[in-house]
Amino acid sequence: MNFKLTIQYDGTEFHGWQEQGDLRTVQSELTQALEVLEGRKVVVNGSGRTDAGVHAEGQVANVVVEREFTPDKLRAALNGNLASDLRVIDVQPVSHDFHARLSAREKTYIYRIVNGPVISPFWNRYACHEARPLNLDRMNQAGALFLGTHDWTAFSAAQSDAENRIRTITRLDVSFRIDARAPGPLIEINVAANGFLRYMVRSIAGTLLALGRGELDDKKIQEAIESGNRSLAGPTAPARGLALFSVSYD
Amino acid sequence: MNFKLTIQYDGTEFHGWQEQGDLRTVQSELTQALEVLEGRKVVVNGSGRTDAGVHAEGQVANVVVEREFTPDKLRAALNGNLASDLRVIDVQPVSHDFHARLSAREKTYIYRIVNGPVISPFWNRYACHEARPLNLDRMNQAGALFLGTHDWTAFSAAQSDAENRIRTITRLDVSFRIDARAPGPLIEINVAANGFLRYMVRSIAGTLLALGRGELDDKKIQEAIESGNRSLAGPTAPARGLALFSVSYD
Repeated sequence: MNFKLTIQYDGTEFHGWQEQGDLRTVQSELTQALEVLEGRKVVVNGSGRTDAGVHAEGQVANVVVEREFTPDKLRAALNGNLASDLRVIDVQPVSHDFHARLSAREKTYIYRIVNGPVISPFWNRYACHEARPLNLDRMNQAGALFLGTHDWTAFSAAQSDAENRIRTITRLDVSFRIDARAPGPLIEINVAANGFLRYMVRSIAGTLLALGRGELDDKKIQEAIESGNRSLAGPTAPARGLALFSVSYD
Repeated sequence: MNFKLTIQYDGTEFHGWQEQGDLRTVQSELTQALEVLEGRKVVVNGSGRTDAGVHAEGQVANVVVEREFTPDKLRAALNGNLASDLRVIDVQPVSHDFHARLSAREKTYIYRIVNGPVISPFWNRYACHEARPLNLDRMNQAGALFLGTHDWTAFSAAQSDAENRIRTITRLDVSFRIDARAPGPLIEINVAANGFLRYMVRSIAGTLLALGRGELDDKKIQEAIESGNRSLAGPTAPARGLALFSVSYD
């Protein structure tokens, strides 16, 4: 039976999603938990990798399981074998041809920033801290520059192994809200696309932060997008502020 | 100069507020940070202790500092010498007779519970988990039983050294909200009083949880309050769900 798993993790103490020898990764801990249940190694197909320190509120994976489980029983059995910073929040039976990566249509990420003199201990693991004032209106307006289909070379890791760097961003908005536990406003950059290159969201977030501080203008950003020249983009924002929010399927 | 400090901490990795030899406590880390600035040991008066694992969103302390600091400079200097799970979020100059404990008029605590089959990794440090269904209406109605002035012996630590166990609860309400990062509803018990005994909020929360699960009724709670008999109250709820929300002064 093929099951779709929706997964949350606090990425702080993981070396990212992807199995890497003895390092603690999300994929390897899921694989081990399934091995306990199935008595054999089960392949865990994730929708894609997340880097060390990046969180997930709605990562998706699929697993083909031989033992008979109801979805609720499989969820409970997996969570019983996982550490508390990694949880399977939902399990759904899916057709045999569902594949978490190959069937994915769109992904949404959230990048969070606490903008104020102090970052709360309750947000320090989950947001980056910007003490300097940010022009939120300008950041939101500039967000529109990123919409559409482009080659995102300027906003990806230099050593990225993706052959095709063309992706379509369908949504990018910058909003802020007051969180009861944070002393300052919490800024959220929501970005959706049919796929992302490595460091792409963190590079876009770093560029919007530089613009918000007045160090970059719209023209520079437009130029970076069109030229593919990394040196025109802003710095890559820290991993802690990034969370994979959701993955959607047809 | 006497300064009032408003402090937040993630209590997960602290052995509570109170200095205790070599253990990592909030008071000892604040004392050490002040010692770096002042070159001498400065007394940190907290509004009261919090137990190991309990959080604070608005703990208050006062310190008398000899070097000249503006409030913002003192906040920045302290935060520069503190770990990221402990932050001074606000500093205000106060008159010489202000004392964080002796001048306190009322305290408010929040106890948080995630009620659903799974607790999100993002709430696991900050809420307790109740998988069984809870009757929120009954919990909220029963909250009113706790209002007023009583001897709270039934709801405090057996070995509490408080001589006078009479306190006045001025507010107790149970609400729930949907948190974007949690898969289940997040229940919040807000309770305000002129003072609290050790374990009092956690004991009230544990009692309301037992009532919500149908294991206790209003009559039993009323009896526990009136008789002071600990065996009639519910169990003490875990520390992780508790946060000192605020301390108010005249």
